[in-house]
Amino acid sequence: MTPDLDLQLSRQIKASPATVWTCLTTPELLCQWFVPAPWRCAEAVIEPQPGGRFYSLFKGPDGEEMPNEGAILLAEPEQRLVFTDFFRAGFVPNETPFMLADITLAPRDGSTHYTALVRHRTPEDRARHEEMGFHEGWGTAADQLATLAEGL
Amino acid sequence: MTPDLDLQLSRQIKASPATVWTCLTTPELLCQWFVPAPWRCAEAVIEPQPGGRFYSLFKGPDGEEMPNEGAILLAEPEQRLVFTDFFRAGFVPNETPFMLADITLAPRDGSTHYTALVRHRTPEDRARHEEMGFHEGWGTAADQLATLAEGL
Repeated sequence: MTPDLDLQLSRQIKASPATVWTCLTTPELLCQWFVPAPWRCAEAVIEPQPGGRFYSLFKGPDGEEMPNEGAILLAEPEQRLVFTDFFRAGFVPNETPFMLADITLAPRDGSTHYTALVRHRTPEDRARHEEMGFHEGWGTAADQLATLAEGL
Repeated sequence: MTPDLDLQLSRQIKASPATVWTCLTTPELLCQWFVPAPWRCAEAVIEPQPGGRFYSLFKGPDGEEMPNEGAILLAEPEQRLVFTDFFRAGFVPNETPFMLADITLAPRDGSTHYTALVRHRTPEDRARHEEMGFHEGWGTAADQLATLAEGL
Protein backbone atom coordinates (compact mmCIF):
# COMPACT_ATOMS: atom_id res chain seq x y z
CA MET A 1 0.00 0.00 0.00
CA THR A 2 1.20 3.50 -0.92
CA PRO A 3 -0.36 5.87 1.64
CA ASP A 4 -0.65 8.93 -0.59
CA LEU A 5 -2.11 7.00 -3.55
CA ASP A 6 -4.22 4.23 -2.04
CA LEU A 7 -7.37 3.89 0.03
CA GLN A 8 -8.18 0.70 1.84
CA LEU A 9 -10.79 -0.88 4.05
CA SER A 10 -11.38 -4.34 5.47
CA ARG A 11 -14.26 -6.33 6.88
CA GLN A 12 -14.58 -9.68 8.59
CA ILE A 13 -17.43 -11.52 6.85
CA LYS A 14 -19.02 -14.57 8.49
CA ALA A 15 -19.22 -16.60 5.30
CA SER A 16 -16.78 -18.67 3.28
CA PRO A 17 -14.49 -17.15 0.64
CA ALA A 18 -16.46 -19.22 -1.90
CA THR A 19 -19.70 -17.49 -0.91
CA VAL A 20 -18.15 -14.02 -0.89
CA TRP A 21 -16.60 -14.73 -4.29
CA THR A 22 -20.03 -15.64 -5.63
CA CYS A 23 -21.36 -12.29 -4.37
CA LEU A 24 -18.49 -10.50 -6.16
CA THR A 25 -18.85 -12.21 -9.53
CA THR A 26 -22.55 -12.94 -9.99
CA PRO A 27 -24.20 -9.87 -11.56
CA GLU A 28 -27.54 -10.22 -9.75
CA LEU A 29 -25.76 -10.61 -6.42
CA LEU A 30 -23.23 -7.84 -7.07
CA CYS A 31 -26.13 -5.49 -7.71
CA GLN A 32 -27.55 -6.29 -4.28
CA TRP A 33 -24.57 -4.85 -2.38
CA PHE A 34 -22.33 -2.81 -4.71
CA VAL A 35 -24.02 0.59 -4.44
CA PRO A 36 -25.09 2.44 -1.29
CA ALA A 37 -28.75 3.53 -1.17
CA PRO A 38 -30.49 5.65 -2.34
CA TRP A 39 -28.60 4.78 -5.52
CA ARG A 40 -28.94 1.26 -6.83
CA CYS A 41 -27.21 -1.04 -9.27
CA ALA A 42 -29.70 -1.79 -12.02
CA GLU A 43 -27.52 -3.98 -14.22
CA ALA A 44 -24.08 -5.55 -14.25
CA VAL A 45 -21.86 -7.60 -16.53
CA ILE A 46 -18.88 -9.42 -15.05
CA GLU A 47 -16.46 -11.45 -17.14
CA PRO A 48 -14.02 -12.79 -14.53
CA GLN A 49 -10.85 -13.11 -16.61
CA PRO A 50 -8.03 -10.74 -17.64
CA GLY A 51 -9.46 -8.24 -20.11
CA GLY A 52 -13.03 -9.26 -19.31
CA ARG A 53 -15.78 -6.67 -19.13
CA PHE A 54 -16.76 -5.19 -15.79
CA TYR A 55 -19.84 -3.08 -16.31
CA SER A 56 -22.37 -1.70 -13.90
CA LEU A 57 -25.23 0.71 -14.31
CA PHE A 58 -26.06 2.84 -11.29
CA LYS A 59 -29.46 4.50 -11.03
CA GLY A 60 -30.18 7.43 -8.76
CA PRO A 61 -33.32 8.25 -6.79
CA ASP A 62 -34.40 10.82 -9.40
CA GLY A 63 -33.84 8.56 -12.37
CA GLU A 64 -30.21 9.55 -12.98
CA GLU A 65 -28.15 6.93 -14.75
CA MET A 66 -24.43 6.40 -14.31
CA PRO A 67 -22.92 3.67 -16.50
CA ASN A 68 -19.51 2.37 -15.43
CA GLU A 69 -17.45 0.62 -18.06
CA GLY A 70 -14.29 -1.11 -16.91
CA ALA A 71 -12.26 -4.26 -17.16
CA ILE A 72 -11.27 -7.17 -14.98
CA LEU A 73 -7.49 -7.55 -14.79
CA LEU A 74 -7.24 -10.58 -12.52
CA ALA A 75 -9.73 -13.14 -11.24
CA GLU A 76 -8.38 -15.76 -8.86
CA PRO A 77 -11.51 -17.58 -7.65
CA GLU A 78 -12.19 -17.19 -3.94
CA GLN A 79 -8.98 -15.18 -3.51
CA ARG A 80 -8.56 -12.01 -5.54
CA LEU A 81 -10.45 -9.82 -7.98
CA VAL A 82 -8.76 -6.85 -9.64
CA PHE A 83 -10.82 -4.45 -11.73
CA THR A 84 -10.27 -0.97 -13.06
CA ASP A 85 -11.66 1.86 -15.13
CA PHE A 86 -8.22 2.32 -16.75
CA PHE A 87 -9.49 0.02 -19.50
CA ARG A 88 -12.69 -1.21 -21.01
CA ALA A 89 -13.16 -4.84 -22.06
CA GLY A 90 -10.34 -6.13 -24.24
CA PHE A 91 -7.77 -3.75 -22.71
CA VAL A 92 -9.06 -0.66 -24.52
CA PRO A 93 -7.70 2.39 -22.65
CA ASN A 94 -10.14 4.80 -21.07
CA GLU A 95 -9.33 8.45 -21.60
CA THR A 96 -9.81 9.41 -17.94
CA PRO A 97 -8.52 6.56 -15.79
CA PHE A 98 -9.34 7.06 -12.14
CA MET A 99 -8.93 3.96 -10.03
CA LEU A 100 -8.05 0.30 -9.73
CA ALA A 101 -9.65 -1.94 -7.11
CA ASP A 102 -7.69 -4.92 -5.79
CA ILE A 103 -10.04 -7.02 -3.68
CA THR A 104 -8.64 -9.90 -1.69
CA LEU A 105 -10.42 -12.60 0.28
CA ALA A 106 -8.59 -14.62 2.91
CA PRO A 107 -9.99 -17.38 5.11
CA ARG A 108 -9.66 -16.44 8.78
CA ASP A 109 -11.17 -18.23 11.79
CA GLY A 110 -13.93 -19.79 9.71
CA SER A 111 -14.83 -16.42 8.19
CA THR A 112 -13.51 -14.33 5.31
CA HIS A 113 -11.25 -11.35 5.71
CA TYR A 114 -12.30 -8.98 2.93
CA THR A 115 -9.94 -6.20 1.89
CA ALA A 116 -10.60 -3.58 -0.76
CA LEU A 117 -7.42 -1.77 -1.80
CA VAL A 118 -8.25 1.08 -4.15
CA ARG A 119 -5.34 2.63 -6.03
CA HIS A 120 -5.04 5.94 -7.87
CA ARG A 121 -2.64 7.59 -10.28
CA THR A 122 -2.07 10.74 -8.29
CA PRO A 123 -2.39 12.00 -4.72
CA GLU A 124 -5.02 14.43 -6.07
CA ASP A 125 -7.17 11.57 -7.37
CA ARG A 126 -6.85 9.76 -4.07
CA ALA A 127 -7.85 12.89 -2.15
CA ARG A 128 -10.79 13.46 -4.47
CA HIS A 129 -11.98 9.89 -3.97
CA GLU A 130 -11.68 10.27 -0.22
CA GLU A 131 -13.66 13.53 -0.34
CA MET A 132 -16.30 11.89 -2.54
CA GLY A 133 -16.90 9.61 0.43
CA PHE A 134 -14.74 6.56 -0.19
CA HIS A 135 -14.93 5.26 3.35
CA GLU A 136 -18.69 5.77 3.67
CA GLY A 137 -19.43 4.50 0.16
CA TRP A 138 -17.14 1.51 -0.01
CA GLY A 139 -17.76 0.91 3.69
CA THR A 140 -21.53 0.79 3.26
CA ALA A 141 -21.08 -1.46 0.24
CA ALA A 142 -18.82 -3.79 2.26
CA ASP A 143 -21.41 -3.91 5.05
CA GLN A 144 -24.07 -4.76 2.48
CA LEU A 145 -21.80 -7.45 1.04
CA ALA A 146 -21.34 -8.95 4.50
CA THR A 147 -25.08 -8.97 5.16
CA LEU A 148 -25.78 -10.58 1.80
CA ALA A 149 -23.05 -13.23 2.07
CA GLU A 150 -23.94 -14.09 5.67
CA GLY A 151 -27.55 -14.68 4.64
CA LEU A 152 -26.84 -16.99 1.71
CA MET B 1 -8.80 -1.52 -33.75
CA THR B 2 -9.86 2.10 -33.18
CA PRO B 3 -8.23 4.17 -35.95
CA ASP B 4 -7.85 7.40 -34.02
CA LEU B 5 -6.44 5.73 -30.89
CA ASP B 6 -4.43 2.76 -32.12
CA LEU B 7 -1.30 2.10 -34.15
CA GLN B 8 -0.60 -1.28 -35.64
CA LEU B 9 1.95 -3.17 -37.67
CA SER B 10 2.42 -6.76 -38.74
CA ARG B 11 5.25 -8.99 -39.94
CA GLN B 12 5.44 -12.50 -41.30
CA ILE B 13 8.23 -14.26 -39.38
CA LYS B 14 9.68 -17.51 -40.70
CA ALA B 15 9.83 -19.21 -37.32
CA SER B 16 7.33 -20.99 -35.14
CA PRO B 17 5.10 -19.14 -32.66
CA ALA B 18 6.99 -21.00 -29.92
CA THR B 19 10.29 -19.50 -31.07
CA VAL B 20 8.85 -16.00 -31.42
CA TRP B 21 7.30 -16.32 -27.98
CA THR B 22 10.70 -17.21 -26.56
CA CYS B 23 12.12 -14.04 -28.14
CA LEU B 24 9.33 -12.00 -26.54
CA THR B 25 9.62 -13.36 -23.02
CA THR B 26 13.31 -14.19 -22.47
CA PRO B 27 15.07 -11.04 -21.21
CA GLU B 28 18.40 -11.68 -22.97
CA LEU B 29 16.59 -12.34 -26.26
CA LEU B 30 14.17 -9.43 -25.89
CA CYS B 31 17.14 -7.12 -25.47
CA GLN B 32 18.53 -8.32 -28.80
CA TRP B 33 15.60 -6.95 -30.83
CA PHE B 34 13.43 -4.64 -28.72
CA VAL B 35 15.24 -1.33 -29.32
CA PRO B 36 16.36 0.14 -32.65
CA ALA B 37 20.05 1.09 -32.88
CA PRO B 38 21.89 3.24 -31.94
CA TRP B 39 19.97 2.77 -28.70
CA ARG B 40 20.18 -0.62 -27.04
CA CYS B 41 18.39 -2.58 -24.36
CA ALA B 42 20.85 -3.14 -21.55
CA GLU B 43 18.59 -5.01 -19.16
CA ALA B 44 15.10 -6.47 -18.96
CA VAL B 45 12.81 -8.19 -16.49
CA ILE B 46 9.76 -10.03 -17.80
CA GLU B 47 7.28 -11.77 -15.51
CA PRO B 48 4.80 -13.29 -17.99
CA GLN B 49 1.63 -13.29 -15.90
CA PRO B 50 -1.11 -10.74 -15.12
CA GLY B 51 0.39 -8.06 -12.89
CA GLY B 52 3.92 -9.26 -13.57
CA ARG B 53 6.77 -6.81 -14.01
CA PHE B 54 7.79 -5.71 -17.48
CA TYR B 55 10.95 -3.66 -17.17
CA SER B 56 13.52 -2.62 -19.71
CA LEU B 57 16.48 -0.28 -19.53
CA PHE B 58 17.37 1.51 -22.74
CA LYS B 59 20.83 3.01 -23.15
CA GLY B 60 21.65 5.65 -25.71
CA PRO B 61 24.81 6.16 -27.73
CA ASP B 62 25.99 8.93 -25.40
CA GLY B 63 25.34 7.00 -22.21
CA GLU B 64 21.77 8.20 -21.74
CA GLU B 65 19.60 5.85 -19.70
CA MET B 66 15.86 5.41 -20.09
CA PRO B 67 14.28 2.95 -17.65
CA ASN B 68 10.80 1.69 -18.59
CA GLU B 69 8.69 0.29 -15.80
CA GLY B 70 5.47 -1.44 -16.78
CA ALA B 71 3.32 -4.50 -16.23
CA ILE B 72 2.24 -7.56 -18.11
CA LEU B 73 -1.55 -7.83 -18.27
CA LEU B 74 -1.91 -11.06 -20.22
CA ALA B 75 0.49 -13.82 -21.24
CA GLU B 76 -0.94 -16.61 -23.34
CA PRO B 77 2.12 -18.64 -24.38
CA GLU B 78 2.80 -18.65 -28.12
CA GLN B 79 -0.35 -16.56 -28.74
CA ARG B 80 -0.65 -13.22 -27.03
CA LEU B 81 1.32 -10.86 -24.81
CA VAL B 82 -0.27 -7.69 -23.45
CA PHE B 83 1.89 -5.18 -21.60
CA THR B 84 1.46 -1.55 -20.64
CA ASP B 85 2.95 1.41 -18.85
CA PHE B 86 -0.45 2.16 -17.29
CA PHE B 87 0.73 0.10 -14.32
CA ARG B 88 3.89 -1.07 -12.70
CA ALA B 89 4.23 -4.61 -11.29
CA GLY B 90 1.37 -5.56 -8.99
CA PHE B 91 -1.13 -3.28 -10.75
CA VAL B 92 0.29 -0.08 -9.26
CA PRO B 93 -0.98 2.82 -11.42
CA ASN B 94 1.56 4.98 -13.23
CA GLU B 95 0.88 8.70 -13.07
CA THR B 96 1.38 9.27 -16.79
CA PRO B 97 -0.01 6.27 -18.67
CA PHE B 98 0.81 6.38 -22.35
CA MET B 99 0.27 3.10 -24.15
CA LEU B 100 -0.72 -0.53 -24.08
CA ALA B 101 0.79 -3.08 -26.45
CA ASP B 102 -1.27 -6.10 -27.48
CA ILE B 103 1.01 -8.48 -29.36
CA THR B 104 -0.49 -11.50 -31.08
CA LEU B 105 1.20 -14.45 -32.76
CA ALA B 106 -0.71 -16.64 -35.18
CA PRO B 107 0.59 -19.65 -37.09
CA ARG B 108 0.28 -19.07 -40.82
CA ASP B 109 1.73 -21.21 -43.65
CA GLY B 110 4.43 -22.63 -41.41
CA SER B 111 5.45 -19.16 -40.24
CA THR B 112 4.21 -16.77 -37.59
CA HIS B 113 2.04 -13.75 -38.28
CA TYR B 114 3.19 -11.17 -35.75
CA THR B 115 0.93 -8.21 -35.00
CA ALA B 116 1.67 -5.37 -32.61
CA LEU B 117 -1.44 -3.36 -31.77
CA VAL B 118 -0.50 -0.32 -29.71
CA ARG B 119 -3.36 1.51 -28.00
CA HIS B 120 -3.53 4.98 -26.48
CA ARG B 121 -5.86 6.95 -24.25
CA THR B 122 -6.35 9.92 -26.55
CA PRO B 123 -5.97 10.81 -30.22
CA GLU B 124 -3.26 13.27 -29.11
CA ASP B 125 -1.21 10.48 -27.53
CA ARG B 126 -1.60 8.36 -30.64
CA ALA B 127 -0.48 11.24 -32.85
CA ARG B 128 2.47 11.95 -30.58
CA HIS B 129 3.54 8.31 -30.74
CA GLU B 130 3.26 8.32 -34.52
CA GLU B 131 5.34 11.50 -34.71
CA MET B 132 7.92 9.99 -32.35
CA GLY B 133 8.43 7.41 -35.07
CA PHE B 134 6.17 4.51 -34.17
CA HIS B 135 6.32 2.86 -37.57
CA GLU B 136 10.08 3.21 -37.93
CA GLY B 137 10.80 2.29 -34.32
CA TRP B 138 8.40 -0.61 -33.86
CA GLY B 139 8.99 -1.59 -37.49
CA THR B 140 12.76 -1.80 -37.03
CA ALA B 141 12.23 -3.73 -33.81
CA ALA B 142 9.90 -6.15 -35.59
CA ASP B 143 12.47 -6.65 -38.35
CA GLN B 144 15.12 -7.34 -35.70
CA LEU B 145 12.73 -9.78 -33.99
CA ALA B 146 12.23 -11.61 -37.30
CA THR B 147 15.97 -11.83 -37.95
CA LEU B 148 16.61 -13.11 -34.43
CA ALA B 149 13.78 -15.68 -34.45
CA GLU B 150 14.62 -16.91 -37.94
CA GLY B 151 18.23 -17.52 -36.85
CA LEU B 152 17.44 -19.51 -33.71
